[in-house]
Amino acid sequence: MTGEGAILAVSGGEPADLARIRVVLVRTTHPGNIGGAARAMKTMGLARLVLVSPRRFPDPQAEAMATGADDLLARAQVCATLDAALAGTTLAIALTARRRELSPHAVDARAAAELAVAEAAAAGEVAFVFGTEMSGLANDEVLKCQRVAHIATSADYSSLNLAAAVQVMAYEARVAALGPAPLVNDRFDAASFEEVEGFYAHLERNLVGSGFLDPASPRRLMERLRRLFARGRLEKEEVSILRGILSSWDGEGGR
Amino acid sequence: MTGEGAILAVSGGEPADLARIRVVLVRTTHPGNIGGAARAMKTMGLARLVLVSPRRFPDPQAEAMATGADDLLARAQVCATLDAALAGTTLAIALTARRRELSPHAVDARAAAELAVAEAAAAGEVAFVFGTEMSGLANDEVLKCQRVAHIATSADYSSLNLAAAVQVMAYEARVAALGPAPLVNDRFDAASFEEVEGFYAHLERNLVGSGFLDPASPRRLMERLRRLFARGRLEKEEVSILRGILSSWDGEGGR
Repeated sequence: MTGEGAILAVSGGEPADLARIRVVLVRTTHPGNIGGAARAMKTMGLARLVLVSPRRFPDPQAEAMATGADDLLARAQVCATLDAALAGTTLAIALTARRRELSPHAVDARAAAELAVAEAAAAGEVAFVFGTEMSGLANDEVLKCQRVAHIATSADYSSLNLAAAVQVMAYEARVAALGPAPLVNDRFDAASFEEVEGFYAHLERNLVGSGFLDPASPRRLMERLRRLFARGRLEKEEVSILRGILSSWDGEGGR
Repeated sequence: MTGEGAILAVSGGEPADLARIRVVLVRTTHPGNIGGAARAMKTMGLARLVLVSPRRFPDPQAEAMATGADDLLARAQVCATLDAALAGTTLAIALTARRRELSPHAVDARAAAELAVAEAAAAGEVAFVFGTEMSGLANDEVLKCQRVAHIATSADYSSLNLAAAVQVMAYEARVAALGPAPLVNDRFDAASFEEVEGFYAHLERNLVGSGFLDPASPRRLMERLRRLFARGRLEKEEVSILRGILSSWDGEGGR
């Protein structure tokens, strides 16, 4: 699992609220998962890793899986108890698989992320708490938290790896922190109404000229073509290209 | 990285639309990533894995990383070209990191998932297309797709592993397919208005009796207590418990 490079990323500014969110891993068994969790956090801009009684840490396997997120491992806080790990938090969210009686109010991962970011934005300190790989969190640990969060998984196969679960939660936190910011597309100048209508008129003349469009029996051809081009929202330059093509066919000289 | 068990999962019924979504991995270098991607897919209920010219497949490393998702590997379709992998699709979405000129319309991962599920619900066939670990997809491959999707990552560290990227996309697809279904909390019977008001009256009598609440100078104490208990929305049994506690203090006998 080493050697994979950076892919699929679009980076933005760092939302300040993420600095108030810590990830707490309780009694993690496999040090590789600690490294994987650190990497997952760092890709999403989370930086504070807290380890409660990890079985092995520091460990070369953790470093191997962190690939570039070793700074998070180096700065990781190791605690003997969950109480110490949650010190100073105003909102702790336990990630759990099992439904339990008398658990804190349950929310899905997205709602948990929105809650976490809202709390951090109000200057609160937030923890996402993950249990041990095989058995999760103990009941008394869950009851130290104000919410439990569940990640939706398949009924047939719910074997979400610890690092993968951290990845999903960290991703949700980042998306919540970024807010509804639409991606900027590398959009070229949009064509104006007049330019688009000029193109349709040109196209219609061409089709009548070629005999493909019979004005006596138009069969809604132009409507269909309008629908097609409207869907893609033409750019200025595309209109020029299309009119150039039409002119090359009809010898009109691009009027 | 082997041996981690199932955690953090809440399983639901399988949304049928997910069966029409395939994951296409193009020229994957590390077979471990193919296994990790298969596992990530299966946790979220995606089942159709298509591999375009993988460097090594099948491979023991792929199987080791799949941990329980070996059926997806066994049924994986191996193609020589992206065209073959996209055969039959009506919507192909390229996961890319770099912004490129003249790329298809760019959307974020969430919007891509919503688009994919809507297309699948309308009986379309959808592909999420992931490039090679180091360099992603070639331009001509991206231009075979109708959308590009970006996963938001940190500006400082965008090294999202291939399997982690598949995990995020598959998770988003599952959440989109499940729709806005609020989690059912193990809620006990809610207390009625009369029960809650009976409790407040009892509490107030107790506080006046103990001298903590001075009716001549109430300092908004009851308002504050109402606010506290209203926030948590009391259950029937909790009202009983609280009134029992009050009675034990004031010797009232729980009227």
